[in-house]
Amino acid sequence: MKDKFYNYIQDLQNTITSKLEDIDGKAKFKEDLWKRTEGGGGRTRVIENGAVFEKGGVNISAVHGALPKTMQSYFGVKDADFFACGLSLVLHPKNPMAPTVHANWRYFEMYDQSGKIVDQWFGGGQDLTPYYLFEEDAKHFHTVCKTACDKHNPEFYPKYKARCDDYFYNAHRNEGRGIGGLFFDYCKADETMQMEDWYKFVTEVGDSFLEAYAPIVEKRKDVDYTKAQRDWQEIRRGRYVEFNLVHDKGTLFGLKTNGRIESILMSLPPRVQWVYDHQPEKDSEEEKLLTILKSPIEWV
Amino acid sequence: MKDKFYNYIQDLQNTITSKLEDIDGKAKFKEDLWKRTEGGGGRTRVIENGAVFEKGGVNISAVHGALPKTMQSYFGVKDADFFACGLSLVLHPKNPMAPTVHANWRYFEMYDQSGKIVDQWFGGGQDLTPYYLFEEDAKHFHTVCKTACDKHNPEFYPKYKARCDDYFYNAHRNEGRGIGGLFFDYCKADETMQMEDWYKFVTEVGDSFLEAYAPIVEKRKDVDYTKAQRDWQEIRRGRYVEFNLVHDKGTLFGLKTNGRIESILMSLPPRVQWVYDHQPEKDSEEEKLLTILKSPIEWV
Repeated sequence: MKDKFYNYIQDLQNTITSKLEDIDGKAKFKEDLWKRTEGGGGRTRVIENGAVFEKGGVNISAVHGALPKTMQSYFGVKDADFFACGLSLVLHPKNPMAPTVHANWRYFEMYDQSGKIVDQWFGGGQDLTPYYLFEEDAKHFHTVCKTACDKHNPEFYPKYKARCDDYFYNAHRNEGRGIGGLFFDYCKADETMQMEDWYKFVTEVGDSFLEAYAPIVEKRKDVDYTKAQRDWQEIRRGRYVEFNLVHDKGTLFGLKTNGRIESILMSLPPRVQWVYDHQPEKDSEEEKLLTILKSPIEWV
Repeated sequence: MKDKFYNYIQDLQNTITSKLEDIDGKAKFKEDLWKRTEGGGGRTRVIENGAVFEKGGVNISAVHGALPKTMQSYFGVKDADFFACGLSLVLHPKNPMAPTVHANWRYFEMYDQSGKIVDQWFGGGQDLTPYYLFEEDAKHFHTVCKTACDKHNPEFYPKYKARCDDYFYNAHRNEGRGIGGLFFDYCKADETMQMEDWYKFVTEVGDSFLEAYAPIVEKRKDVDYTKAQRDWQEIRRGRYVEFNLVHDKGTLFGLKTNGRIESILMSLPPRVQWVYDHQPEKDSEEEKLLTILKSPIEWV
């Protein structure tokens, strides 16, 4: 399973970066291969200063070895060996009318001292962070998410949509990071889903990413915008930074377990503003976005 | 003691904001009074888009009531009442040749059920975060810190200078946030220092702030700089954000105990950049700064 899934995310990284370069038309992804001292490594691909993508990363990694102490206490286990691999992507378009997107698909194995697998699970998801809300974009993104889920279990979309709203939440601001999508974790074998079934589900979601996001960015990348709208985007990007550095478990684990910092923090937006006590104008598009971030909507 | 110290920081806020407005010459501090539902409140003063200060805050607060659960577990105590007051300031000058500065002076009391003080302490400090290193500025700042300390105990400066280097450290980057200054906490009565002595020490440091910082910003505020130097400042400000959101205990406590978010996050810089894997040129001024941030120097 680990080889199969790692092959899958290698191919998916190629597919996604190739399509994104087509959309951008100007910038190319820069590739960095890196090794982890304790075992494994990754292939980081970052795009910067493109015509469409101001900054973004589509990274894969496969790491293994002794489970770090911080993860032992998190999982409530003692000394163990592990393997983890995944693809993580974040794209920050230049145009404030085009949303930021995040996606991640990952697989984890834990071993006993004889090397036998004692636990294994998939996790991941994909979610959208608009700066201006186009309802048709939100509906499109969620419809693609739902369609992928429904092929496997009609309960998945409502469950993982709700988890996404819960997880990507800036509690200190009482608002969502964005308008959600899917978030699932600890997808383990049970009476209804074997690991092979989870593999099919997770790769179905992975395969749906470009269908979910590409039409949106293509539709919005050349829309006119004002300086005030760009400022709003940079202020909202500040909230993205706040979520990733204060609340996001993946980011904090990475920072505290000697992960590759530049690959982890590729998620941070290129240009960001913090303005004291910024409030959108009454009945503006900016206020409309905030209202929805404060109470998530059922898009499909 | 609590009334005496709160009066002191009210006066100090007036003195500092008045002097900073003189230096700026263009912008004025905007004042927000706020109340805390559970008891107490504060007086936030923020300056933005000045001729010298692109953004800054000089805030006081005095809060009291039942000790929040998160602080109970942090201090290792059960249900208790508390009082805390302090002044916190952060200034982000526009000119990359002028350093960012942070300072804080605070006083804390804890009570038993009869209202008797069962614990009380002072804390605080001041530290400098340059984007370009002028050794004479670093020496001046540390000399003022040392002079203030030496009037009370010759061991204070080396001790609190080292604690400052330890505390304001971006562990995930293996570099200091800046070039330090003073950091002290849990300053409690003992055989050599009564609370009254600590009051005199802490107010001595508070009184030294303008002497430590004002001459530096006045000297650097009009120095010419290039776009590349401004970019470097914005990239380094990203490290400031990383420290405050990932490592700073005060910020995280505030965010997790329902503090006034806008007063806490006034510390975040106005305009920030994250560039993937940015490396300064060899033998440049930017590289010189990084070298010093990686291994702190004795400035006096």
